[in-house]
Amino acid sequence: MDWTLSKHSHRTLQAQIVARISERIETGDWAAGTRLPPQRELAARFGVNRSTVQAALDELKADGLLDTRRSSGVYVSGSAWNALLSRSQPNWQRHIRASVHRPNRHTIRLINESEPDPAFIRLGTGELAPDLLLAGQLEHSLRDLKLDPRMLGYSEPLGSLRLRLAICARLETLGIYAQPDNICIVSGALQALQLISVGLLEEGSAVFHEPASYLNSVHPFQSAGMRMLTFRHGSGMRERLERAIRGRQSLLYAVPTLNNPTGRSWNAAERQSVYDVCSDLRIPIVEDDVYRDLLFEPGLPPIKASDSSGQVLYLGSLSKSLSPGLRIGWIVAPSPVAARLADVKMQTDYGSSAFSQEIAAHWLESGLHAQNAARLRGELQARAAFAEAALRDILGEWTDWESPAGGFYIWLRFRQPIVEKSFFLRLLHRKVLINPGYIYESDDLHHMRLSFAYASPEQLEAGLLAVKEEMLRSLKDRAL
Amino acid sequence: MDWTLSKHSHRTLQAQIVARISERIETGDWAAGTRLPPQRELAARFGVNRSTVQAALDELKADGLLDTRRSSGVYVSGSAWNALLSRSQPNWQRHIRASVHRPNRHTIRLINESEPDPAFIRLGTGELAPDLLLAGQLEHSLRDLKLDPRMLGYSEPLGSLRLRLAICARLETLGIYAQPDNICIVSGALQALQLISVGLLEEGSAVFHEPASYLNSVHPFQSAGMRMLTFRHGSGMRERLERAIRGRQSLLYAVPTLNNPTGRSWNAAERQSVYDVCSDLRIPIVEDDVYRDLLFEPGLPPIKASDSSGQVLYLGSLSKSLSPGLRIGWIVAPSPVAARLADVKMQTDYGSSAFSQEIAAHWLESGLHAQNAARLRGELQARAAFAEAALRDILGEWTDWESPAGGFYIWLRFRQPIVEKSFFLRLLHRKVLINPGYIYESDDLHHMRLSFAYASPEQLEAGLLAVKEEMLRSLKDRAL
Repeated sequence: MDWTLSKHSHRTLQAQIVARISERIETGDWAAGTRLPPQRELAARFGVNRSTVQAALDELKADGLLDTRRSSGVYVSGSAWNALLSRSQPNWQRHIRASVHRPNRHTIRLINESEPDPAFIRLGTGELAPDLLLAGQLEHSLRDLKLDPRMLGYSEPLGSLRLRLAICARLETLGIYAQPDNICIVSGALQALQLISVGLLEEGSAVFHEPASYLNSVHPFQSAGMRMLTFRHGSGMRERLERAIRGRQSLLYAVPTLNNPTGRSWNAAERQSVYDVCSDLRIPIVEDDVYRDLLFEPGLPPIKASDSSGQVLYLGSLSKSLSPGLRIGWIVAPSPVAARLADVKMQTDYGSSAFSQEIAAHWLESGLHAQNAARLRGELQARAAFAEAALRDILGEWTDWESPAGGFYIWLRFRQPIVEKSFFLRLLHRKVLINPGYIYESDDLHHMRLSFAYASPEQLEAGLLAVKEEMLRSLKDRAL
Repeated sequence: MDWTLSKHSHRTLQAQIVARISERIETGDWAAGTRLPPQRELAARFGVNRSTVQAALDELKADGLLDTRRSSGVYVSGSAWNALLSRSQPNWQRHIRASVHRPNRHTIRLINESEPDPAFIRLGTGELAPDLLLAGQLEHSLRDLKLDPRMLGYSEPLGSLRLRLAICARLETLGIYAQPDNICIVSGALQALQLISVGLLEEGSAVFHEPASYLNSVHPFQSAGMRMLTFRHGSGMRERLERAIRGRQSLLYAVPTLNNPTGRSWNAAERQSVYDVCSDLRIPIVEDDVYRDLLFEPGLPPIKASDSSGQVLYLGSLSKSLSPGLRIGWIVAPSPVAARLADVKMQTDYGSSAFSQEIAAHWLESGLHAQNAARLRGELQARAAFAEAALRDILGEWTDWESPAGGFYIWLRFRQPIVEKSFFLRLLHRKVLINPGYIYESDDLHHMRLSFAYASPEQLEAGLLAVKEEMLRSLKDRAL
């Protein structure tokens, strides 16, 4: 076996280890029942740290190639051959493993797959609870929908003009003066990132983001071969950015208002200095502002509102404040950039649902959206207060957090580094879903993203009690 | 100037030439008003043929970097500097040009941008005319929609279970026995290709398609770095495929029923031999079957119906037979493959519109879709007959075609190679939009895709008369 990994490959070390071990199994060199060398030894041979080996083995287990037998190590699974080599069909596993797009992390796949199961208590979910969504009013508004037959066809590249006009009006209330040809309608802000990634960056471009970042839980840039780099506010920022660019293209991604997952908002000085540094270095900024409607008190204006040079790409969405099921968001950009992103979107999916676009336009134009957002802020503020009370009560002794200023999240910090994958899995087993900090910052074992927007008060309490029990178990294990 | 192009780059020769010329302009070496060397000389220096240089120059003109002054050559445009170098903002043009995703061809961008303008006669459009879409009935069906609040949240990865069950029932009528976990809901078949491309193939994989192919007019595989190769039915197919794979991953894409753009359907022997060859060589087949509902007479069953090995990925859609604006299609695949594609979709846009999925499920379950498809077949058959009569009348002397067996298209062949870009542009100028053959097969100057599904009878006649006049002009120019 060749143990040398490439630091220059587009594939991560973890992916390379997965590929190497899969090959061994596929070729039959490691037959079913083969015991793998201990993790420590694998780590030494590959020249990586143990957590990388652990993550690779977890992935192989999730795919059914490896088994763990309690306390006696990791084995090639009896069905591995089956999973990998079916002689009568294409080798789909190999297709999947070698392909361009990175898989979601195992933890995130488990979250995505478990969320639809109503048996789960969802403590980390980034969306509104069903009873906060106005299903009745949405249903009612469908009755008022007038379908222009022309609208039922393929969309124009930038999206529905009616919707773009409604968005321009809304942006004006935020101090952003845009024309319809500055707006590209997308199927949610995540698609916006996907389009920006492949439509504006070359492979190897530097993408800067904050240390704990939503971008670590999805891969729109990573899958297109970008280099992910963190930045921090403060005096050394300019030099760090400049050094990291190395003459290549770059982009800075941020959620300056109610960051996901930390819930934090940038102050005025932070906004100004990031804008100034990026202007000087000509680094485009992607300002993801999807939580703005959910600020409990009015906040600072978007960076885009004082962008005189057109270097800020501004993202908005109805997913957080109306319905994720609509899949409607928007990019505000200089018109050639909007046209470029629309062109890529046309090649990707020929535009967003015309029905969703009409519903969105109706809600924005009619004022229903603004009313609904005001109602939501009240509801969320009450839920946040309840969640804080429950936290103080159940976990106050072991954790710290900042009071949320809006949105969905409390970035809950455990004083001990107990939020490991095993902690997540034990809670999963108990039908309690959490979003562990490590999906937002890979070496963070202190945090979980607690959402007060989804679970009911009863579920929240029951879930936190389960978290407490598993935390105590982890602390006990650590003490041993 | 460095005139050497790389044959091994992921970027096409055309893209490399565009980049080289842009650089010259950007650095100021070629200032506004600079006259470019003649095409012949550029072609010789770059070591490519003239058509490649021509295409590169067209792209640069479209982007406002170059101007043509009648009969005196090509110049750097007065606004080029402006377009390329704005000192106060990121260099967006450079971002766009260097980025991962290929732009749509200039012709296709012009089509996409012109289609929403009601002043145009649309002779090539691949969608139903607004009066063939049941806007009234769709509007009415919205009134019956019951919105389950849970459904308004983020979708489960594979998409709405209700919709997947409705699709399974429909597939059964085609002889395809699938379970809900074999179905991945997508926002139209184009998105399916995008997901298959990045989710199942590695860079450099071989993608086989027929010579005149819809895939040449979109870039889901090209943009991810796949090698596009054509295949033809016949005795040498196996050897050609085998040779072209070179031990790399591969995939064969086909529209065996009512191909886009040719309208042709494969016979039973062609279906069998492609399946057999691909089985032997373990090449997955993507069977794009989006036109099946529109067969005037029942056709041969899908290849997927006799796929015993799970190597056929089957694509269906409601865009052609209900409404493109819905953006609802599906992939039928072995369950691990469906799960993988769903995982990539979750990373791309978090699922398709829940509203569109509910409407689609309602139409499929209620039988409305089947009724509507029967009505459409009748309407399209009458329109096809009208179009053929008009063709005989107006262009019969100069063209040939096969009578359509369904769908939208007549693959109209001009006996002289007159369907050039200039022909397209002259018609565009007259507000007549055609889909020239060269967007489906780059060196084809004989065909245009005529759609009988969109233009009204009056528009069709007026459009064909304009085509005739421009054809006569082209023939006259050729004779000179």
